[in-house]
Amino acid sequence: MSDPQYAKGAGYVRGRFVPMSEATIPVTDWGFTRSDVVYDVVHVFKGGFFRLGDHLDRFEASMSKRRIRPPEDRAAIEDILHRCVALTGLSDAYVAMAASRGQPRLFGSRRPIDCENHLICYALPWIDVVPKDVQERGAHIWIASTPRVPDASVDPTIKNYQWNDLTSGLLEAHDHGFDTAVLCDANGFLTEGPGFNVFVVRNGKVSTPDRGSLHGVTRKSVLELCAELGIEAAVEPIPRAALADVDEIFLATTAGGVMPGSRIGERILGNDRPGPVSLKLKHAYWKKHEEGWHRTPVRKLAVEAAG
Amino acid sequence: MSDPQYAKGAGYVRGRFVPMSEATIPVTDWGFTRSDVVYDVVHVFKGGFFRLGDHLDRFEASMSKRRIRPPEDRAAIEDILHRCVALTGLSDAYVAMAASRGQPRLFGSRRPIDCENHLICYALPWIDVVPKDVQERGAHIWIASTPRVPDASVDPTIKNYQWNDLTSGLLEAHDHGFDTAVLCDANGFLTEGPGFNVFVVRNGKVSTPDRGSLHGVTRKSVLELCAELGIEAAVEPIPRAALADVDEIFLATTAGGVMPGSRIGERILGNDRPGPVSLKLKHAYWKKHEEGWHRTPVRKLAVEAAG
Repeated sequence: MSDPQYAKGAGYVRGRFVPMSEATIPVTDWGFTRSDVVYDVVHVFKGGFFRLGDHLDRFEASMSKRRIRPPEDRAAIEDILHRCVALTGLSDAYVAMAASRGQPRLFGSRRPIDCENHLICYALPWIDVVPKDVQERGAHIWIASTPRVPDASVDPTIKNYQWNDLTSGLLEAHDHGFDTAVLCDANGFLTEGPGFNVFVVRNGKVSTPDRGSLHGVTRKSVLELCAELGIEAAVEPIPRAALADVDEIFLATTAGGVMPGSRIGERILGNDRPGPVSLKLKHAYWKKHEEGWHRTPVRKLAVEAAG
Repeated sequence: MSDPQYAKGAGYVRGRFVPMSEATIPVTDWGFTRSDVVYDVVHVFKGGFFRLGDHLDRFEASMSKRRIRPPEDRAAIEDILHRCVALTGLSDAYVAMAASRGQPRLFGSRRPIDCENHLICYALPWIDVVPKDVQERGAHIWIASTPRVPDASVDPTIKNYQWNDLTSGLLEAHDHGFDTAVLCDANGFLTEGPGFNVFVVRNGKVSTPDRGSLHGVTRKSVLELCAELGIEAAVEPIPRAALADVDEIFLATTAGGVMPGSRIGERILGNDRPGPVSLKLKHAYWKKHEEGWHRTPVRKLAVEAAG
């Protein structure tokens, strides 16, 4: 039922479904020129969305906090996401939704309230934040010198595209031959990295930062899995200095799930391989996927809609 | 010689000149999804660019600091800007150039170095950051509660689209019935506002912040005019508390020039009208424009190029 023109992905822009080559925004859209946009990403695993409701909850909260309101309501957004995936025919997919401030209805206005907000959605073939082979050996994680933007200036719980500090960290990491980076805030507390939350494990206890971070859906899943598996877990301040003393580190993101690290800065952890708690959580995360945990099957296209 | 299809503006994307309706970027471009992009804006006044060399210098510095390098060199960028303006036939124009990280050459890469960087340019009819009538009565400027993103996290001298903190300040200003906002940093020092530098005047001395701010080209022009007019001027720390004691305030930006304020927070300055030093600088700024100060005439289109 999928359409070959959508094999590389299907988009929804300006109220229409389009192949990815036509999924564009004007260069004068404030979502671009002011990064005045919120977004979310949900994944599809073997034909089912994972925690779609949680992603839609967060997306609605992000839009509300930034006062961006496209014409489509939650039910319409959900329908559009289903249809984007169905058009591609993909059973594993990376599915994004973004709400942009748009542009002023009246040329020249500088008032956000004058803008025509709009929705962008698209489904693409699955993308791992960290390549599979790197996930196997464990990611080498750089501790960036660039401080994370403070929560008071840009609320990190509103999922946003303002990645400059994260990109600076990523460039540093690559310069030093590392795979990716984590950032600390100006007070020296661990926050997050480019596209993921971070967890550390010490003496069997799992911790993730309480600040400077998105409230990740995969982070939430990890905390639920810890409870289920009887692993102690906490959301708490993690000073940079604590990284000198952790047993394991892993990253958590929609685009990759639970991704163990094997090096943090100049430190080699364990046997330079993913640690046991990280692996246990990674395996549980994917096993629960197989079992249909928090799964919403992707709706098939109606016959008349395929043309 | 201008072309009617370019009356609303002319763009340059993906190596081609296009009407603004076709000046778009993919929704998956990292310039959008990571705000991984630098930009600059120069204005054209009565057929001449103002300080084009300064804008190109800063644009090149921004690109270099963020390691973004589109295929077009400086001379090519300059040609493209001339041609964008000439296509529109506008004698007063807002002219933007942006360099985006682009997208990875290989689908799925998360490495900035794998991306195909690209140039975006466009010329639009002139836009004032503050409407003319507001400029006449003096802008009402709100002191935002949102702290400016620290320089260490995002270098404000690299002109960027990450406006979330500035937009938060603007929303606050509009909520309180003000025209625009200035932001202080977390240490309580004045920085800048959404799209402009800020200056204060006290006892005849002009000051502008030394931190948290773009090194604006209009700011530079104001400092030059102060020297020429024998007005004492300094780039220095300005504590928020000092705003309770200034005689005048004005804003400086390419899209508007020198724009006096008449209110700062709950304070009404002077007679609720623009102050004398601000007006003197504003008039000098435009008078010097008339005289051809730092002017580069826009090149006419060659006959064969118009088709």
